[in-house]
Parts: sequence; structure tokens; C-alpha cells
Amino acid sequence: MPLRAGRLCGFCGGMTRFRFAPIAAALPATVPFTGPETLERRRGAPFRARLGANENGFGPSPRAVEAMERAAAEAWKYADPDSHDLRHALAGHHGVAPQNVMVGEGIDGLLGLLVRLMVAPGEAVVTSDGAYPTFNYHVAGFGGRLVKVPYREDAEDPDALVAAACETGARLVYLANPDNPMGSWHSGARIEAMLDDLPQGSLLVLDEAYAEFAPEDAIPRIDPEDARVIRFRTFSKAHAMAGARIGYAIGPAELIAGFDRIRNHFGINRIGQVGALAALGDRDWLTHIRAEVAAARDRIGDIARMNGLAALPSATNFVAIDCGRDGAFAQALLDGLAQQGVFVRMPGAAPMNRCIRVSCGPAPELAAFAEALPKAIGTLA
Amino acid sequence: MPLRAGRLCGFCGGMTRFRFAPIAAALPATVPFTGPETLERRRGAPFRARLGANENGFGPSPRAVEAMERAAAEAWKYADPDSHDLRHALAGHHGVAPQNVMVGEGIDGLLGLLVRLMVAPGEAVVTSDGAYPTFNYHVAGFGGRLVKVPYREDAEDPDALVAAACETGARLVYLANPDNPMGSWHSGARIEAMLDDLPQGSLLVLDEAYAEFAPEDAIPRIDPEDARVIRFRTFSKAHAMAGARIGYAIGPAELIAGFDRIRNHFGINRIGQVGALAALGDRDWLTHIRAEVAAARDRIGDIARMNGLAALPSATNFVAIDCGRDGAFAQALLDGLAQQGVFVRMPGAAPMNRCIRVSCGPAPELAAFAEALPKAIGTLA
Repeated sequence: MPLRAGRLCGFCGGMTRFRFAPIAAALPATVPFTGPETLERRRGAPFRARLGANENGFGPSPRAVEAMERAAAEAWKYADPDSHDLRHALAGHHGVAPQNVMVGEGIDGLLGLLVRLMVAPGEAVVTSDGAYPTFNYHVAGFGGRLVKVPYREDAEDPDALVAAACETGARLVYLANPDNPMGSWHSGARIEAMLDDLPQGSLLVLDEAYAEFAPEDAIPRIDPEDARVIRFRTFSKAHAMAGARIGYAIGPAELIAGFDRIRNHFGINRIGQVGALAALGDRDWLTHIRAEVAAARDRIGDIARMNGLAALPSATNFVAIDCGRDGAFAQALLDGLAQQGVFVRMPGAAPMNRCIRVSCGPAPELAAFAEALPKAIGTLA
Repeated sequence: MPLRAGRLCGFCGGMTRFRFAPIAAALPATVPFTGPETLERRRGAPFRARLGANENGFGPSPRAVEAMERAAAEAWKYADPDSHDLRHALAGHHGVAPQNVMVGEGIDGLLGLLVRLMVAPGEAVVTSDGAYPTFNYHVAGFGGRLVKVPYREDAEDPDALVAAACETGARLVYLANPDNPMGSWHSGARIEAMLDDLPQGSLLVLDEAYAEFAPEDAIPRIDPEDARVIRFRTFSKAHAMAGARIGYAIGPAELIAGFDRIRNHFGINRIGQVGALAALGDRDWLTHIRAEVAAARDRIGDIARMNGLAALPSATNFVAIDCGRDGAFAQALLDGLAQQGVFVRMPGAAPMNRCIRVSCGPAPELAAFAEALPKAIGTLA
């Protein structure tokens, strides 16, 4: 006979409520980022400039939009869990085999799966202090031990990352190239050399979310079967489809196949998958986006200079503006901008947190930023 | 100085390739379901009737389709990671607080998160032999120990589930009501009584994916703060939006908040989220869907009877047809249907695998099934 709730069975020890598993129980209730909608609800009004999440306000390819509109009525079907057509198109685009490509719910989702696949509780993972918080969130979420090295001259430091990997026997080493949140970048040759320096047993997690905005020589030439590295790309940035949640990994077939052991096979949105395929085929739109982003970067640089601030060089669709003081000052500036309806973010770690990070966007939004920035500075003076 | 790859650092022991973490390393390369697109590629032609995945071919609400079409051009924005509007609408709809609702990438995604949140490696989880494979996939994927009890008269057996939970100290007990793949159901009162019998420390995972098709008295009345149960609902079935990947959990606020510790906060597709909100508001369409599904169930029953087979009662949008022989016969029938372009599935465990499972769909697809079934039977005779 089953025990009644009022009695005690041998396992529960008198517990009256659920309990989380040990790793989850030890986690703080945290979020990597607070969404702009949440901030809008807090301030009680929408932002007039949405320039904080490195979204791409120039918008998706009209061909992608049309494909997604057409797919809406077909939303009763699950997406192809093999992402066959998209994977094959991506493989062709990158000159790799379809077995080297895994499609997932954005790089964020794939990073979580990678950590789960590779990192046992207590094992070390190396990243830079101030680099992508969502990666850290996943490492903590699976009980990994985060080892952070400092940025060096506003860039992630390959030598320091490799050294920390050697010291700790790190399972994963995270590097974003180009970097978020600073916009800095290394040459592809430097990344290739880093692979040779990595200790055996360490896998380089090369986050190339912003690759399409970078100079060509910033992209390393890597054999897709190179077992020392897995690369991540996305439709969220250059393809302006952050809301579609389509990212992908490129890596050795054996590693890529590992995702099939743990991923949510039917987790991808059908409309997003169809849209990504259409976006990939529209190279003209990508050229258009690159030109718009380059012009917006220049415009953000001009706005910074007009206010006596320095824009850092960027190979991404955002610009880090050095506000010349400390993190408290940059935060106050951020708050001042938000009060005027301009949403931007800032790096999370010193000394990069002397900056604010402004995403490229259409002219009206940059005009709002240009108008709000001197007022925010004036209030603080 | 970092070690070069040619040398050995203290941690790698001469390993030349990556290795998976222990739990992932022990997992088979498996998928819970092979997608219909994969089957179509194998057979070299599309299906003419897609009746195997319990999708809802009657399609989403026109209001949802319109909302998704409108949202396509806005796909450059991430979705609101708090799903504020949808969560509040769902809370209002179910008469619970927004803090009792968690939105995720379908029930599949939420089940994975729940297992991760609650089950440490080696801990027991109870389900029925033949119940939802994706739940089992997640339990295995996090190193849980699956304990299976048999179905009883083609239904999941609450008494057996509770007894197994008591014997094993199970952390989770899975029950789908109505059941998939058999279409059977229990009364809400039976589920409520089951909660009283559950041992302390066991959480009932109540999968109500098909609830909207069930008789009203099949839905238990449960206080959302009842710490003994978490319920799952979806837009994939009655709302015909499987491709949107929007499911939700209802449970105690403290448990629901746990998801925020581990979920991919920016994992939800913006278009799907917008579409779900519109679908929830279209009660007339739901009424229409229910009528279509009820008629299709009757039609599938008629087709079964015309072929000398018995359709089992169903409270879902599919019908299990008892083929009267063993699993090998049902599998052969399934193959015979697939050869004629009719995609259906079958239960995975005996004795339910004497059946084939046919999803409700529009008249032309059921006509294709009606045409193909006698031929498939004839070939086997």
C-alpha cells in the first residue's frame, strides 16, 4: 500500500516541500541580462531607442521576413528536428560537411548544451573577467568552476586564457572574437596560434556571434575536424533575427554528434528555421546591413567625440564608449540615458566598466542617443 | 609559459581528442522521435497525410497567424525573456498568479529543465513503460534512474506509480492525463486522490498537453501552490502551434522561480510568443478546433471499424487503433501505411504496441488514411 502523505516513508525524512537537486539548490536566483521589456515596465514607458542588447534594428532580410510570414500558417507543424535544409545550406556556405554543423536555439542555448556535454561538476572552465555573462551562467548552472583572467587593453587575452587553462586543466576556454562587450578583435592568425598553445584536453569555445561585422583577416582558418575548437555563429546579429533564436555550432563531427545525446530535438521554432534559411540566401541584404552598421559605428563615434568621450574601435555592431571615469560614473550615465528613454548597456567588470556599450541602430534611434547623451552628462557634471 | 600541444600538461594524460563529461559520455546517441521530414527524406517523397506527430492540422487561430505575420518583421528583437504579457494572460486564464506560471520552449524543453532542477544523478524517477519517451530522454540525460511501471488496461496506473515512488523514493512521478500514446484518461478526482497518496519528497509531473480535448471532469482542481505537483500545458496541440514551441508550467511560485536559475532566459522565439498570446485570446477558434477534432476522432473510429479494427476511446487529438495482433504486426502495418505516404506512429511498449496511433487531421488526410489502411492490411494478410 502506498504511504499517505501524513505518514513518513523511508526516503523523505519528514520533508514537507519539494527540494532542488544539489547543483540547482546552490544556484542564486539570477538572470544573465534583464530584458529591455522588463526595464520598460519598470520605468512605465517604452524606450525610444533600443540600443542596449546588440540587436540589429536595421531588420531582417525582406526575403526572410516574407518566408516567416508564409511559415506562420504552417506553425501547426513541428520544425524539422534535424534542421536538414538549414544545416546543409550552412555547410555549403562555410565549406564544411553537414555533420560539422549543429543548429540550436541561439548561441545561448548551444553554449548551455556544450557545457553540459563537456563539464562535470567541479571541473574548471576558463573565461575572461567581463566576458559573456550567459556563458558563465551556464557554467555555474552545471556546477563548473569558473576561472577568470583579466582583459588586456580592452581585449580578451589569448595568452592569459591559455596559461589559465594549463594551470587548471580547464575543459573549456571561452573566447569571443570579435569581443562582446568591448568590440575589440584579434587576427585569425592569433586565434590559430592560440590553438597550438592550448593544453590537450581543453576545448576552445570560439564565439563568433559578430564575425560578419569583422575584417576578413579576423576570421581564423580552422579545419572543421580540428578537435581543439568549436565555433559558434548566429542569425541574431548580422542577420537581424535575434527573436528567431537560431544559432549554430561548427566543429568536429564526433563532437557535433554529441549534442544529439542531450539537446531538445524538437526545440527549434519552425518559423525561425525557415527564416534563417531565407536570410542565409540573401547576401545582398548582408552587404546592406554591413554598410549600415559601419555608418552607424561612425555616427556613434562622432556622437562620443562631440561629447568629449572616446569611442573604442569595434569589429561588431556596437561601440564601447570610454566615459573616462569609473564604473559608477558610467552607470550613472546609463541611468541618465534610460530616464530619457535610451536603452544602452555597459560592461560588467572593471576597468571596462568605465565604458557604455551602444548598439548600432537606425538614424532616429541614434539621434535620440545624440540628444540624450549631453543631457545625461550635464546632469552628472 | 603555456604548454605547447606537443607536450603534456599535468591534466590531460596524453589525450589527443576531446572527451565528454561522464553523464554525457555514457549516453547513447539517440533521439526520442524521428521527425516526419527525416522519414520523408528516407522515402524520397513527402507524405500525403501527416498524422503521426499529434500535430493539429486544423491549424492555428487566424488571429494567431495574423499576429505572427505581423511579428515577422520585428524578429530583430529578442523576445521578452520574462514572457510578461503571455504569463499574465495565462495566469488570468487559469485563475492563478503570474508567479505560478513559467513559459518555455514547449513542454519538452520545460520537462528537461524540471529534471535538471530536481533530479541528481542516480536518483529515481517513476514513469509508465510506454509513456512519453522525451521525458525518459531527459531523465537519462541528467543521469536519473528511470523506474517504469506497466500500463493497466491501456491507461497509466496511478496506484502503481505511487507504489513505485514509495519503494524508490522517486523525486519525480510522471503522469500524462489524458495519456499519450493511448488517448486514455483519468478523472480529475482520481488525480487529486493520487496527490494524497504520493510520498513526501515526490513531485507529480502532470503532463496535460491534451487537456483541452478532454472532458471537463478529467481536469483536477489543484491549488497552484500545492507543492506536490507541477502541471504542464502547451500551445502545440489544441492551439495547433507545435512549430511555435511555446509550452508552460503551472506550479508553486517557489518551484516556478527555480526555473529562472537554469533556463535559457532568451530562448523563446518572439514570433511564437506573440502568436501564443493571440491564440489564447481566440476562444472561438478553440471551440472550432474541439469540434473538428471530435469529428475526426469519430471518423478515425469509423475507418478502424470498416477494417475490422477497434478504435480505443480517446480524450486527445489522436486515436489508438487496436490492430488485434502483436507489435510486429502493428509495425508492419505502420510501414505499409508509410509506403503509401501516410505517416502515423505506434506506442513503444507492449501490450500497447498492438496499436497504431493516428492523429486527427483534416478530411483529405483522413481520406488518404482510409484509402491506405485496407491496402496495408491486405498486403499483410
